[in-house]
Amino acid sequence: MPQPLARELGNLIERGRDRQLRLAVTGLSRAGKTAFLTSLVHQLRHAGLEARLDLLPAARDGRLLGASRVSQRDIGVPRFPYDQALAALSETPPRWPDPTRGISELRLVIRYRPAKRGLLGGETRELTLDLFDYPGEWLLDLPLLDHDYLSWSETQDSRQTKGGARHAMFAEWRRAVATLAPDDDADEAQLATIAEHFAAGLRRAREAGFADLQPGRFLLPGELDGAPVLQFFPLPGLASDQRKTLEALPENSVYRTLAARYAHYRQYIVKPFYQQHFRRFDRQIVLVDVLGALNAGPERFDDLSRALGTLMQSFAYGKRSLLARLFAPRIDRLAIAATKADHVTPEQHGRLVSLLEALLAEPLKDLRFADVPVRALSLASIRATHSREVEQRGKRSPALAGTTLVGDEVLLFPGEVPSRLPDAGFWERQGFDFPAFRPLPHDAGALPHIRLDAALDWLIGDKLQ
Amino acid sequence: MPQPLARELGNLIERGRDRQLRLAVTGLSRAGKTAFLTSLVHQLRHAGLEARLDLLPAARDGRLLGASRVSQRDIGVPRFPYDQALAALSETPPRWPDPTRGISELRLVIRYRPAKRGLLGGETRELTLDLFDYPGEWLLDLPLLDHDYLSWSETQDSRQTKGGARHAMFAEWRRAVATLAPDDDADEAQLATIAEHFAAGLRRAREAGFADLQPGRFLLPGELDGAPVLQFFPLPGLASDQRKTLEALPENSVYRTLAARYAHYRQYIVKPFYQQHFRRFDRQIVLVDVLGALNAGPERFDDLSRALGTLMQSFAYGKRSLLARLFAPRIDRLAIAATKADHVTPEQHGRLVSLLEALLAEPLKDLRFADVPVRALSLASIRATHSREVEQRGKRSPALAGTTLVGDEVLLFPGEVPSRLPDAGFWERQGFDFPAFRPLPHDAGALPHIRLDAALDWLIGDKLQ
Repeated sequence: MPQPLARELGNLIERGRDRQLRLAVTGLSRAGKTAFLTSLVHQLRHAGLEARLDLLPAARDGRLLGASRVSQRDIGVPRFPYDQALAALSETPPRWPDPTRGISELRLVIRYRPAKRGLLGGETRELTLDLFDYPGEWLLDLPLLDHDYLSWSETQDSRQTKGGARHAMFAEWRRAVATLAPDDDADEAQLATIAEHFAAGLRRAREAGFADLQPGRFLLPGELDGAPVLQFFPLPGLASDQRKTLEALPENSVYRTLAARYAHYRQYIVKPFYQQHFRRFDRQIVLVDVLGALNAGPERFDDLSRALGTLMQSFAYGKRSLLARLFAPRIDRLAIAATKADHVTPEQHGRLVSLLEALLAEPLKDLRFADVPVRALSLASIRATHSREVEQRGKRSPALAGTTLVGDEVLLFPGEVPSRLPDAGFWERQGFDFPAFRPLPHDAGALPHIRLDAALDWLIGDKLQ
Repeated sequence: MPQPLARELGNLIERGRDRQLRLAVTGLSRAGKTAFLTSLVHQLRHAGLEARLDLLPAARDGRLLGASRVSQRDIGVPRFPYDQALAALSETPPRWPDPTRGISELRLVIRYRPAKRGLLGGETRELTLDLFDYPGEWLLDLPLLDHDYLSWSETQDSRQTKGGARHAMFAEWRRAVATLAPDDDADEAQLATIAEHFAAGLRRAREAGFADLQPGRFLLPGELDGAPVLQFFPLPGLASDQRKTLEALPENSVYRTLAARYAHYRQYIVKPFYQQHFRRFDRQIVLVDVLGALNAGPERFDDLSRALGTLMQSFAYGKRSLLARLFAPRIDRLAIAATKADHVTPEQHGRLVSLLEALLAEPLKDLRFADVPVRALSLASIRATHSREVEQRGKRSPALAGTTLVGDEVLLFPGEVPSRLPDAGFWERQGFDFPAFRPLPHDAGALPHIRLDAALDWLIGDKLQ
């Protein structure tokens, strides 16, 4: 066999290995996961036609030929509801798609021409892209793997018991749990009632915009609704030097019963997600609604920061980490993105990225230490505004034109995004009130976006060379 | 050790083996599962006090001391919502409890004195009774284990395509599926649409009172909502002599795609219920709403008969059956009960049992052949009427006094229950219209019932000797 042809065949085999990529999208509720995935699929399907993907070299060079949906690999996982999402965007007036509630999946086959033509000439290639969408809340349960019931109870102690708006939401639970002693005989009905108070506190906190909520499945019980495994809660006031005494209590004591449920939750609810899905993702993007958190005020902003710190631990696994030892995940590239960038004027986008990086400063350090390549960016998956320059008091100012969720057409000068974490003084001086817009009317062309192509380039661009 | 004491100890050990019993309750939707389990738990908890359980010897002899709820064995299974059911019955006006939707479980410890006192004297014993409640619809999927996709398609052919009210409910699906050929390339979105038409037909049929509906999980998708595994349907017009040709079609053909989903459903949805739960039940009661089926007319009555025939196959496993080979179930005693007996006058109860036996004639033959002891009876788990004798045209007739679901207090002479399967002429001459009553107001005492104690005697009485 002549050398060049042999090399060519070798290349083909080499590429064969790369022809599948599993890309996961996550973020906390309302971060924009559904809009991101819908737009991503829409752009790739319209590639080569109307889609504007100039920051993705394969598209810019005209080598991206299109994408088609094919049967997904795991038919036991719900399919990502792309058609329903697109239908919502095409309504009159358009509306944002309904949020997804669990994991969902969708498989695309992308056709492209390689950047360097081989000896075999003008061939086309295919990349199979498996897309996954799952709730970021599930990752907030990761720390449970690191704790037993006693140490978890201790970590929760400060959260539900110290002051603030969140504190008030757990008042009923605190009253109820105060009647329990660890060595009481467990009463099924009483534990169920107290657990329901705890879950109600979590639900209230989520509705008020808090994100750092454990255990995640209490908020989305599904088929486990009413199962004792979802009926535990921390016991306030436990200390680790009591461990021996506590573990010697009878099996049907309050402490042992709650500890057994906690252990079951960890083993049969938290672990299976990592085992069955997480460990197989190749690439990951984490979406963050930074502007929403600024709107919500200092307590929720701090809460978001803490929740993201927890969430990102799932990616910053060093070789020695518990996660790496348990599941050997293989995510080799990560993007973090501030979504809804079109809700501020373009000259603010740099600050938005800086703020995101400040918010994730600690997790980013861990990621660098763990040698996971990561890129921060801001984007709008589906554009909802037009930016304008408007004459104001004799000088031209950037402004946004759009339609608010309630249907008012407005021209706005949204406030400044801070480029660093706002301090207490800052919150006192200035509140934030970034408006929420409905999507632009959608006609036949590709969905308008901001820098979705930059995200695509980082996440899949190297596989389209 | 003196002989008598040694024998006594041996007895104790022997009994120890018998101190656990797993009793399962099933029936199709609205058969009265929740009312049965609620009343059963209530009677046992009130045993020794107000409960009237004269047909259960241990209770009649004053040896049944009571029962208490304890932690269930499998904390990943929802707890049977006993408290919520009791609360519904105690409302003003009382209402029937909400139906359960999947499997649930509850553990009781029953305290009793053995019938023959041993040398150790007046000791009390305990029986741990695990109660399970699961939808009879799940058992309708059993035949799927016996079929591959092709043969299942053939069995379904006649059901959705021949005439009758049920036929009309699948009209949209038939139109949609007619556009498909087995060797077409599978189009994900198209298959999803046609599957949704099929599921909509099943839902309409269930709402209209039909019971013989496959696949069962299409009616209760839970967390699998939107997953391709629930997106299959029979292909009309297939014949088994095409098997070779069909199986040689490409993997992404319509036929192969649907067949793969069917196989996944069988393996990961039907089988796990038998593996994880069914094979561990010791005793089983099947509840049947015979009166409701009479009310609904001949087509639905025949449908119920067919559904029950299918359902009962799960219990009539001979040694050579597929079920026995796969899962080795161990149900050693079965009860079948016509529920809501209080909705007809007492002298009709004998006919109600005869009709139930006629309805189940074929399955009962199979059960006898398989040597599974079975008892048929009629009962009212929670009494909703009082029976009266009323003077009518000079003679005393039995009548029922109660409050209908909409709140009217009525005195009724319900029609005659046929003691054999009604033939076509019978349906023409006579319709049925048995009324539906709300439960009697519930005060402190045990819930009033009819022959729940007879069911209890058959199902657990031998363990309370």
